[in-house]
Amino acid sequence: MTLAPPPSSRVQLTEDGKLRHFLSVEHLPRSLLEDILDTAASFVDVGGRAIKKVPLLRGKTVVNLFFESSTRTRSTFELAAKRLSADVLNLDIAKSATSKGETLLDTLRNLEAMAADMFVVRHQDSGAPFFIANEVTPRVAVINAGDGRHAHPTQAMLDMYTIRHYKGGFAGLRVAIVGDILHSRVARSQIHALNILGAEEVRLIGPRTLLPTDVEQLGVTVFTDMAQGLKDVDVVIMLRLQKERMDSALLPSEGEFFRLYGLNNEKLRHARPDAIVMHPGPINRGVEIASEVADGPRSVILNQVTFGIAVRMAVMSMTISGQESNPDHGGDHGR
Amino acid sequence: MTLAPPPSSRVQLTEDGKLRHFLSVEHLPRSLLEDILDTAASFVDVGGRAIKKVPLLRGKTVVNLFFESSTRTRSTFELAAKRLSADVLNLDIAKSATSKGETLLDTLRNLEAMAADMFVVRHQDSGAPFFIANEVTPRVAVINAGDGRHAHPTQAMLDMYTIRHYKGGFAGLRVAIVGDILHSRVARSQIHALNILGAEEVRLIGPRTLLPTDVEQLGVTVFTDMAQGLKDVDVVIMLRLQKERMDSALLPSEGEFFRLYGLNNEKLRHARPDAIVMHPGPINRGVEIASEVADGPRSVILNQVTFGIAVRMAVMSMTISGQESNPDHGGDHGR
Amino acid sequence: MTLAPPPSSRVQLTEDGKLRHFLSVEHLPRSLLEDILDTAASFVDVGGRAIKKVPLLRGKTVVNLFFESSTRTRSTFELAAKRLSADVLNLDIAKSATSKGETLLDTLRNLEAMAADMFVVRHQDSGAPFFIANEVTPRVAVINAGDGRHAHPTQAMLDMYTIRHYKGGFAGLRVAIVGDILHSRVARSQIHALNILGAEEVRLIGPRTLLPTDVEQLGVTVFTDMAQGLKDVDVVIMLRLQKERMDSALLPSEGEFFRLYGLNNEKLRHARPDAIVMHPGPINRGVEIASEVADGPRSVILNQVTFGIAVRMAVMSMTISGQESNPDHGGDHGR
Repeated sequence: MTLAPPPSSRVQLTEDGKLRHFLSVEHLPRSLLEDILDTAASFVDVGGRAIKKVPLLRGKTVVNLFFESSTRTRSTFELAAKRLSADVLNLDIAKSATSKGETLLDTLRNLEAMAADMFVVRHQDSGAPFFIANEVTPRVAVINAGDGRHAHPTQAMLDMYTIRHYKGGFAGLRVAIVGDILHSRVARSQIHALNILGAEEVRLIGPRTLLPTDVEQLGVTVFTDMAQGLKDVDVVIMLRLQKERMDSALLPSEGEFFRLYGLNNEKLRHARPDAIVMHPGPINRGVEIASEVADGPRSVILNQVTFGIAVRMAVMSMTISGQESNPDHGGDHGR
Repeated sequence: MTLAPPPSSRVQLTEDGKLRHFLSVEHLPRSLLEDILDTAASFVDVGGRAIKKVPLLRGKTVVNLFFESSTRTRSTFELAAKRLSADVLNLDIAKSATSKGETLLDTLRNLEAMAADMFVVRHQDSGAPFFIANEVTPRVAVINAGDGRHAHPTQAMLDMYTIRHYKGGFAGLRVAIVGDILHSRVARSQIHALNILGAEEVRLIGPRTLLPTDVEQLGVTVFTDMAQGLKDVDVVIMLRLQKERMDSALLPSEGEFFRLYGLNNEKLRHARPDAIVMHPGPINRGVEIASEVADGPRSVILNQVTFGIAVRMAVMSMTISGQESNPDHGGDHGR
Repeated sequence: MTLAPPPSSRVQLTEDGKLRHFLSVEHLPRSLLEDILDTAASFVDVGGRAIKKVPLLRGKTVVNLFFESSTRTRSTFELAAKRLSADVLNLDIAKSATSKGETLLDTLRNLEAMAADMFVVRHQDSGAPFFIANEVTPRVAVINAGDGRHAHPTQAMLDMYTIRHYKGGFAGLRVAIVGDILHSRVARSQIHALNILGAEEVRLIGPRTLLPTDVEQLGVTVFTDMAQGLKDVDVVIMLRLQKERMDSALLPSEGEFFRLYGLNNEKLRHARPDAIVMHPGPINRGVEIASEVADGPRSVILNQVTFGIAVRMAVMSMTISGQESNPDHGGDHGR
């Protein structure tokens, strides 16, 4: 499918600056990202309560619209929606014959007509959630759950939450992102978020074959050597190595990758003594990260998962609230 | 599987005339169909509310029992049930090994024993929902979500709702149903509903190869030419062309079908100027309908989808209520 | 996968003897099994009510973690959880690529980090639920929904409920279990439960090739002849014959098996006149049981299904309550 290029991210905001879709952190104002983190903080407690449920989205219909299968990501959005008391409809478009040759737009129009309030969209094509957000009726919020190599903004925001939680803020922070930057929508979203939130320095570490060519424009420093790249960083973010890249000859072998870029305690010595280690999961033990690090005292990988539910609850409740404050909003379809 | 022929549709009603199963519109009294439409009207508003939920089926268990996969139809029933506050269990019998060689009756008995309140049944064999309704215990309501070539009564009723909404009623109305009538359970249910509700004239338009042989008994007028068939009609209902029919040599080609029976603005000129265009979806653009019509001002295709949720909520709440008013009703199983 | 041998079943109980996991009936005290049956009795009524819902697990997250697919068993746990007002997440690990090469432990840690409260585990390997229960954080309850050839404790408890319901208790009772004992996790759990609850005599009936070698240690009497084995029993439990066993030459043929061990009215004459007939389902008509018996007056097979929902509700609410009374319990993850 060819999709129109992503338009200005102004589509994400209402006229008075509230979030109505969440598609990409790029171009969003710092205050809004901080709002998301603050709202998420109020939801972190919900997961620890005896009754893990708040009524904010009661009577709303959230559709998980997954054109690319991902049980893990779908599960986190499903739990977040249910803890907000929403009704959830899971549509695994990748596996079903739902559309029966129907166009994407016709599928969307049908779901809108069923009075869906939110589409959580996962798509193999970059820009698909932007395309959808531009096409949906005013009362439907769209959340990007990962599109092609473009963005995975809720993952980036849960990473930001984790960093702020452990480091108190972003001022003066040095953050290294390590591994297959080229194919990572997660890395792109992290870089934008870190720059917007005012991190001191964002470093990318990886082999030249796995670095994007436009890397200089991203406001980052590039390293191909781990010892140099990790020197004195406060945060190390390891990326998942996609095994498919190995087959396509972009990389020599798993063993060779681990020797050069896999994070073990020895390489971690170069970072600051209080550095935290993050990973979006699922981890490949012995490929990009050694078990001694993944299970070690500096790893906050599982805390990221916990914070991820809260961040998704925050983005869901903020976009629904943004839609409802929109003057275009109306429930007059079919009448 | 061979099933017993559908028994009298009296199985659908309680002794005092209330709906307890919804299997077919055939033989149902006009007052009951009007009741369904009136009840649906009260639910259309629910989809436009901030909290799209009413407690009518709270604590009830609705089982979507799909022997034939259909993500779209299943989704509409799932949403309708959830907006009525029911608990929903989706059983995709076509894809699962649930039954492990178990008979249909044993599967039903097991679900009854789990205290299910409603079976929404989709089945490739005509008559299967009737068979099931005859066999279930008195307290379980059965809704036909499409059986073989026989019936798709909730689709027909949402079509009737749409017609009444835009035309005010059925008296004096001319309605044309166009396309593959032969294989369409939707068309059969529509013809019965239109005749019961008192439409002036029901016309069928299509190639002779796609018209049923018993067509004269259905109380319809038959046309093989679009210009003649559409002349002065108030409502045009296009049917989805099943691509499989093409392969079986019942039709020359998609292009040829579109040329003769595909609805475009030019052919639509023959209908009344205020005629509405309907389609059960999903649409095949450029096969049975041109985009200029599907997306044009006379199309009410997406409104049908919206009304469809309301009609399914109506039928679900009416059958549950009918079951509860039944003297045979009891919760004494297993005691 | 090789798993550590099941540790002492003390992992199932809190220090003051409350149930916190339900993995196996073996080694559990009689008073606890009686507690489960008594708690289930209070839930049997819920299935007969107009509103089949109690708020005991409101705001809790139950994860159906099925490494081996079983739509039927999953459905019973899903319904039980929903009637307790829990949120349910179904993970069909067998069919999904969730783990993407991730270890079992990493999958568990991730679900824990999402603040799951309960794992309902089905696994092809004996001992897997014990392994999981030993590894989970204190606040997560684990329920065994069938593991390898080892145990299926909720099935055994629903069988005990059924026996107590129809026979008033276990003292003096003679119970025969018939069929493929060797491969049956159900039979193993039943034998333990019957012995703990004080049944007078547990008999196993089947061909030598389908009896376990350690059968003498189980506290049972063994018969290879139906007439002798069924003589004067109060309860007959038929097991499902797995067709796969036939292929592996452990059995001559379905016809031969039915002739020797299939339960028909003639063989049933040897049992007491008021004997009840049970089966865990799904039944193979004409293989291990004749329709005249399955559908006859002594069959309580469907009542077992009804009681099964109540027993699962009991075990779910008791383990959650046990976890909450645990001093190790805390919601401080991620903080």
